[in-house]
Amino acid sequence: MPRTLIFMGKGGIEVENYNMEELLQYVEEHRFRSLRAHLSEMNEADIAEFMEELDNNRKVLIFRMLPKELATDVFACLEADIQEHIINSISDAEIQKIVEDLFVDDAVDMLEELPATVVKRVMRTTTPETRKLINQFLQYPDNSAGSIMTAEYIGLKKYMNVEQAFSYIRAHGVDKETIYTCFVMDRERHLEGVVTIKDLLMNPYETRIQDIMDTNIIKTVTTEDQEEVIDLFNKYDLLCLPVVDHEDRLVGIVTVDDVVDVMEEEATEDFEKMAAMLPSDKPYLKTSILELAKNRIVWLTVLMLSSMITGSILTHYEQAFAALPLLVSFVPMLTGTGGNAGSQSSTMIIRCMAIGEVEPKDTLRVIWKEIRVAFVVGLILGALNFIRLMLMYPGQSMVCLTVVLSLYFTVIMAKGIGCTLPIAAKLLNLDPAIMAAPLISTIVDACSLIIYFKIACNLLSI
Amino acid sequence: MPRTLIFMGKGGIEVENYNMEELLQYVEEHRFRSLRAHLSEMNEADIAEFMEELDNNRKVLIFRMLPKELATDVFACLEADIQEHIINSISDAEIQKIVEDLFVDDAVDMLEELPATVVKRVMRTTTPETRKLINQFLQYPDNSAGSIMTAEYIGLKKYMNVEQAFSYIRAHGVDKETIYTCFVMDRERHLEGVVTIKDLLMNPYETRIQDIMDTNIIKTVTTEDQEEVIDLFNKYDLLCLPVVDHEDRLVGIVTVDDVVDVMEEEATEDFEKMAAMLPSDKPYLKTSILELAKNRIVWLTVLMLSSMITGSILTHYEQAFAALPLLVSFVPMLTGTGGNAGSQSSTMIIRCMAIGEVEPKDTLRVIWKEIRVAFVVGLILGALNFIRLMLMYPGQSMVCLTVVLSLYFTVIMAKGIGCTLPIAAKLLNLDPAIMAAPLISTIVDACSLIIYFKIACNLLSI
Repeated sequence: MPRTLIFMGKGGIEVENYNMEELLQYVEEHRFRSLRAHLSEMNEADIAEFMEELDNNRKVLIFRMLPKELATDVFACLEADIQEHIINSISDAEIQKIVEDLFVDDAVDMLEELPATVVKRVMRTTTPETRKLINQFLQYPDNSAGSIMTAEYIGLKKYMNVEQAFSYIRAHGVDKETIYTCFVMDRERHLEGVVTIKDLLMNPYETRIQDIMDTNIIKTVTTEDQEEVIDLFNKYDLLCLPVVDHEDRLVGIVTVDDVVDVMEEEATEDFEKMAAMLPSDKPYLKTSILELAKNRIVWLTVLMLSSMITGSILTHYEQAFAALPLLVSFVPMLTGTGGNAGSQSSTMIIRCMAIGEVEPKDTLRVIWKEIRVAFVVGLILGALNFIRLMLMYPGQSMVCLTVVLSLYFTVIMAKGIGCTLPIAAKLLNLDPAIMAAPLISTIVDACSLIIYFKIACNLLSI
Repeated sequence: MPRTLIFMGKGGIEVENYNMEELLQYVEEHRFRSLRAHLSEMNEADIAEFMEELDNNRKVLIFRMLPKELATDVFACLEADIQEHIINSISDAEIQKIVEDLFVDDAVDMLEELPATVVKRVMRTTTPETRKLINQFLQYPDNSAGSIMTAEYIGLKKYMNVEQAFSYIRAHGVDKETIYTCFVMDRERHLEGVVTIKDLLMNPYETRIQDIMDTNIIKTVTTEDQEEVIDLFNKYDLLCLPVVDHEDRLVGIVTVDDVVDVMEEEATEDFEKMAAMLPSDKPYLKTSILELAKNRIVWLTVLMLSSMITGSILTHYEQAFAALPLLVSFVPMLTGTGGNAGSQSSTMIIRCMAIGEVEPKDTLRVIWKEIRVAFVVGLILGALNFIRLMLMYPGQSMVCLTVVLSLYFTVIMAKGIGCTLPIAAKLLNLDPAIMAAPLISTIVDACSLIIYFKIACNLLSI
C-alpha cells in the first residue's frame, strides 16, 4: 500500500510513535474532541493500528471522525476485514469519496478481498472512469507487474521547459503516487524518456525537457512476473519502474514501497513452500484452522506416502536387523544426518536461485562444489563417529566401519541429491522450492537405508 | 549500494539492457574508442556485470577507460575481490579520487572486505576529513542502523523560504544520496523537522520552511538493529529514515535502496539458519569449500549427536521389534510425518515473528491454533493410514490401531513442539530461527518413538 512518502508520527528515539493507552482512554471517556486532535497529528499507519484495537462499532465511529484528507489514507492501511466492515457501515457517497481518493492499486487490492456483493455495491458508486480503470487492473494476472503497479504518475511533454514542467507538477502533483520521476510521452503515450525532479532542479528553468531527459529507459510490461520486477529494482536500485502494455504504451508505474511489500511476500511464500506448505497470502493469525490444515495436509500426505517406501526398505532388510538388532539403533542417526546434509544443500541452492546468485548454467560448478563440501563434512562426521563407536562398542570394529562408511556415503549422496534436484526442477520450469528440505529428506532417507544395508550385508556377511 | 535513482540502460521490453557479445567483441578487436562510447551510455550496474566477464588485466584497462564521472559509480557496483584487484593496480591519486567520490557507506562496505594492508594504503590516500568519517562509520556495530546509513543528505534551516531552499539544493544536491527529503536542523544538529521536495514544490516560493516542515519525525538511533529499521520502512512506507546519535543529533540517513538489500540479506540469513547452517554474507559461488564446510559442520554434528538419543530409544525397545519386526517398518513414516508436521509449524511461527506478524504476547493464541490444526491434520492422516493398513495387513487390526493412534498423537505433539520452541527462544532472547526444522525434527523423532512404543507395548502387550 504505497502512501507515506512523508515522515509523520510522533517520533521519539525509541520510536514510540504514540501512546495507545492514552488514546484508548480518550475513547473510554468519550473525549472525542481531544481524540480527534490527537489523531490528526498521527501517521495513518499508526491510526490504523490503533483502530484495530477497538470494537467494530467504535471502529466506524472513529473512522468517521477522522479529518477527510486523512480518512482515505487510513482506510488503505486497514486490514481487509475492517475495510469490509466500514464499507458496510457507511453511505454510498462516503464510499465513492474513498474509492475515488484511493490509488488504483490500493482500490484493486481492497476489491480483491471483498465478497462479491460488497464489490458490486462499491463499483456501483464509483464514476465510470474509475470503474473502467479498476476493471482493467483487475484483469492483470496475479503476481504480474500489472497487478502491483499504480496508474498515477506525472507525464510530461518533451517540448516543455523546466519551468513549465515545474508548474505542471505543482498543478497536478498532489494526487500522484510519486512525483520524483516524471515520464515523457508522445501523443500515443509511448515512453520517450524519463526525467527526475533532481534533473529538473539541477538545470536552468529555460532548459527543454528533451535535452535533459534520459532516453535509455528501464521498463517492464504488464504481464512480466513480479519476481523479475524485484530483480530490476535490486539491480538498478530504482525508486520506480514504468510499466508498458504490449503496444509499448505507458500504463502505470511500480513504486519501491510496493516492491518492498512484494519482496517480503515472496520470501514468506518460499519459506512456506520449503516447509512443505501451500503458500497463503493471508496473515497467519487471520487464517482459519481449516485453511491452515488444508495448506498443510497436501504435502504431509505426499510425504507420508513416500516415507512408506522407506518403511518397506526396512522391511526388506528385516533379516539383517533380526540377525544384528544393534544395526537398527544407528538408523535415526544415518537418516537424520543425511536429511540435514541434503536440506542444507537444497536450501542453499534454492535461495541462491531465488535471488539470482545461481543460474542453471552454473549446474556443474554447483554440483562439483557441493560434492567437495560433502567430502570434507563427511570425513569429519565419520571420524567423530568412529571415535565414539570404538569407545562405546569396543571389539565391534566391523559394525563401526559399516556405520562410518554408510555415514560418509550418505552425506555425499545427500548433498548430491540436495543440490541437483532444485536445479533440475528449474530446468523443467518447475518451482525449485518444491525440492526443499521435506522432500529431499524423504528421498535421502530411503537412499541412505539402501546404502547402509548394502554395506552391512557385505561387510558383516549377513 | 545506493546509486541509480535515475533510469538508465538501453531498455527494450525484454529488458535486454546491453549486448554482452558485442561489448566483448570490441575488447577482442581492441576497438576501445567504440567500446568507450558504448560504455558511457550504459548503466553502472550493467558495466560492472560486463567487467566481471573479463580477465583481471582487462578489468583494470576497461576501468581506467571509463569516463571519470562514471568510474566511481561502477566501482561501487563491483564485487569485493575485483575492487581489491583494481585498487592494487591503480595509483594513490586514483584511489583518493574514488574514495572521496564514494558515498561513505559504500566506502566502508568496501574497506570491510579488503585485507588490512590494502586498507592501510587506501586510508593513507584519503583526506583527513574523509578518514575521520570512515573511522566513525567503521565503529558502528554490525547490523546496526549506523552500519547501513550514509552521511550524505540535504540539511536546511527553518528560517529559509522555499526559494532559498531550492537554490541551496541546486548548489549542494548533486552529491547527496537522496534529495527528496530534506532535514531541518538547529545549530547543534538536532532535528527540528523534515520537508520533502514535494512539500517544496507544492508551496509558494516565499513560504518559510518552518511553516511547512513536518515536526513529527520518525527517526532511529545509530545503534538500533537493522531489522527494526526494516520494520519502520515497512510500516510507514518510507523512502529514507534519519539516524541520530545518542545525543539526538542527526548523523546520517538510511535510504530505501539499502533497506531492500538488507531485507534480502536478512531473509537469506534466516533461510541458512533454518536449514542448520551458520549464516554467511559471502555469495555462495565465491565462498570457499572449507568455509562452506565449516558453516555446515557445526549443526550437523550437534544434530548427529542428538539423533543418537533417538537411536538409544530404539535400542531400549529392542524387545518390542524383536517380538514384532513389522513394527519397525512404520518408524520412518511416523518420524518423517512428525518431523514434517513440526517443521511446518516452526517455520510458520519463525517467519511470522521475523516479519512482526506474531509476537510473544500471542503465544497462547498461536499454540491453541496449532493444536487445533494438528487435530484436523492428524485426523485426516490417521484415517488415510487406517484405510491403507487395513487393506495391506488385514486381520492385524491392533497393529493398525497402534500405528494410527501413534501417528495422531505424534502430529499433535510435533505441532505443539514446533510452535512452542521458537516462541520460547524469543522469550529467552535467542534467535527463534535456531528452533527450525532440523532441530525440531530431531526432537520430534525421539518423542514420536517413545509415543509409538509406549502405545505398542500397551495395546499389543509386548
